[in-house]
Amino acid sequence: MIGEQQLDRLAEIAVKIGVNVQPGQELIINAPIDARVLVQLVAAHAYRVGASLVVPFYNDDFVVRARFENAEDSSFDFAPTWLYEGIRRSLSEGAAMLSVVGADPTVLAGFDPKRIGRMQRAQAAAARPMRNLISSFTVNWSVIAFATPAWARSVFPDDIESVAVEKLWHAILSATRADRDDPVSAWREHADQLLDRCETLNAKRFEALHFRGPGTDLRVGLIDDHVWVGGATEALNGIVCLPNLPTEEVFTMPHRERVDGVVRASKPLVHGGVLIEDIAVRFEKGRIVEAYASRGEEIFRSLVATDEGAARLGEVALVPEASPVARSGLTFRNTLFDENAASHIALGQAYAFTRRGGGGPEAGANESLIHVDWMIGSDRVDVDGITPEGSVVPVMRAGAFVI
Amino acid sequence: MIGEQQLDRLAEIAVKIGVNVQPGQELIINAPIDARVLVQLVAAHAYRVGASLVVPFYNDDFVVRARFENAEDSSFDFAPTWLYEGIRRSLSEGAAMLSVVGADPTVLAGFDPKRIGRMQRAQAAAARPMRNLISSFTVNWSVIAFATPAWARSVFPDDIESVAVEKLWHAILSATRADRDDPVSAWREHADQLLDRCETLNAKRFEALHFRGPGTDLRVGLIDDHVWVGGATEALNGIVCLPNLPTEEVFTMPHRERVDGVVRASKPLVHGGVLIEDIAVRFEKGRIVEAYASRGEEIFRSLVATDEGAARLGEVALVPEASPVARSGLTFRNTLFDENAASHIALGQAYAFTRRGGGGPEAGANESLIHVDWMIGSDRVDVDGITPEGSVVPVMRAGAFVI
Repeated sequence: MIGEQQLDRLAEIAVKIGVNVQPGQELIINAPIDARVLVQLVAAHAYRVGASLVVPFYNDDFVVRARFENAEDSSFDFAPTWLYEGIRRSLSEGAAMLSVVGADPTVLAGFDPKRIGRMQRAQAAAARPMRNLISSFTVNWSVIAFATPAWARSVFPDDIESVAVEKLWHAILSATRADRDDPVSAWREHADQLLDRCETLNAKRFEALHFRGPGTDLRVGLIDDHVWVGGATEALNGIVCLPNLPTEEVFTMPHRERVDGVVRASKPLVHGGVLIEDIAVRFEKGRIVEAYASRGEEIFRSLVATDEGAARLGEVALVPEASPVARSGLTFRNTLFDENAASHIALGQAYAFTRRGGGGPEAGANESLIHVDWMIGSDRVDVDGITPEGSVVPVMRAGAFVI
Repeated sequence: MIGEQQLDRLAEIAVKIGVNVQPGQELIINAPIDARVLVQLVAAHAYRVGASLVVPFYNDDFVVRARFENAEDSSFDFAPTWLYEGIRRSLSEGAAMLSVVGADPTVLAGFDPKRIGRMQRAQAAAARPMRNLISSFTVNWSVIAFATPAWARSVFPDDIESVAVEKLWHAILSATRADRDDPVSAWREHADQLLDRCETLNAKRFEALHFRGPGTDLRVGLIDDHVWVGGATEALNGIVCLPNLPTEEVFTMPHRERVDGVVRASKPLVHGGVLIEDIAVRFEKGRIVEAYASRGEEIFRSLVATDEGAARLGEVALVPEASPVARSGLTFRNTLFDENAASHIALGQAYAFTRRGGGGPEAGANESLIHVDWMIGSDRVDVDGITPEGSVVPVMRAGAFVI
């Protein structure tokens, strides 16, 4: 089991580097109930740096499962709108937010995909005003992970639970640099490197990226005035946060109508408690026109059908195969980690801050209730940048940056 | 440890008899994080009877303690107003509420009483609009208990934890009749008996109650048009609920200016994580003018000073010494149980439904941010009713009803 000292260091990184909680600021924490010990340490660090109030919300997979096992069919269109509205209000009044991920990736395996889809749509609609404040970085926020037993068993199915938990903790602490002597300095240095990479890519002003690999031949047109972003982010309230711990990606905004070709996922996607494997899709003029998966295909199709924008891209991200997450060789079945192990694309809502002048459909920015990342990069995938003049610039070769 | 079957029965009673959750109704659950296994069972029962949505909130004593150990002084005037407002909105739209009590009764022992008082005032002010919907029975609600290890250790300090938890569960299941063959019928029968008692007392139209015992000589003037209430309550939404499990009390509304004499508490009061022992106070014209306690006196004085109405009474309740809770002989250090073991009075807000025509200060009903019950009855206390004509009617002798 992870030691109290290491857990405390992770909590400290989350408060000081991740969210960067300010004196007098309220902190809302979202966490699996199994992560309570980390939440308690985070609360202590947040109060120590001067937080006015820490409000934890614990999510309980068993209550979710009790719903699918017992509720009337009509239940699945309900979501606690009033709760999301309350959190939205608190964020709009200046609260910061920390999400702890680590729920059982397959908590809803075996339940009716249609009901899962309805529940997810209802929640996405209820949460949208709140999520807009997060995705627009109106306030500082961050996401970290906790190795719950259920998640660990899912990542290491062949190990007994205690061994699985220990292995997952080892991977989390390594990926989040919490095992280093001075993790705060390590993160500052790493964030500077990501910033340099963004500046290089921004200087190129690529018109498109071209992904090539097994089952993949995809041209992702970038929106005019796109901005590459990565590492630390200055929120609109002036506070610099590191929104994902770990983070290895640099990302920008595709044009919602300029994506063409085929692409095959390089890792499974876990979405809403269901595992979706071997995704393969074809895009035409920005829109998914064919979609397959060897497992969870119905959930994936239902996801893509959420709304018009759910079949289009809101983000494209580049991640080298040399990242600590990728080097672990694991499939974490959790987007926070898997998206930092491989280049990826995201269906749904675009981030306004990845374009100069912001988003908006008239400019070609995608809009949707959803934002779901899935991995398409690997050491067998190459990426080229296409300049406005049509010349081809190698960006990644076998998963490594060459630019 | 309590068996899954007994816990499930308690969950079933809470849903069907306590809250009486209706098809299509949302259920909000408030519970200590240690009570998660009960919450999961309650959620299953609520969904089974047709709840549209179950929204659990878990309270974490460690996060509260982290605040007192680490926060800046200014923190203690903050409360999550937005969260209480969200719950208020949900209740006003028809949600029901179940509170699970069982937090460590002494979680805040040793911390600065002034800060505890400030935190409690801030929370009471933030929660007031929500509490008004509860205390006015705008919706159906209930309170049940879960034997957390911290609570059990506090009730049975001489036992090892596992024994203490088992003893406390035994007491809870006995007091809540969850150990009977047919607890649902047992509760219906008991609720009828409480109703009969209310009808007897209502027919008397007493002007005042007179409590006499060791250290106690207290005249509690009742408000004109007072109504005795007990057992099941029909909420304004038409749903009959049993707001406390267990419940043994019948209660009504004192006149805020007509309470005179001295009274000594017959059990310790646990309020806001602090134990207050041997309370003794003197009332003049309804108001506390002297207040003492052998332990926690500063917290008690701070409570009484919350606002003008906090030094006056909002409730007087009669409970026989023969109740299952009283027969256990235990001091539970928890109001849900201790108030059902002994006659009691409550400082603060009056319940509008305990007077025909409702509350309001012009009629003599008390108003306050707080409502705190404390026990004054025992087998050494007698209670008389005083009729408008001045005659004296014995109501209780040595803690037993004689009316």
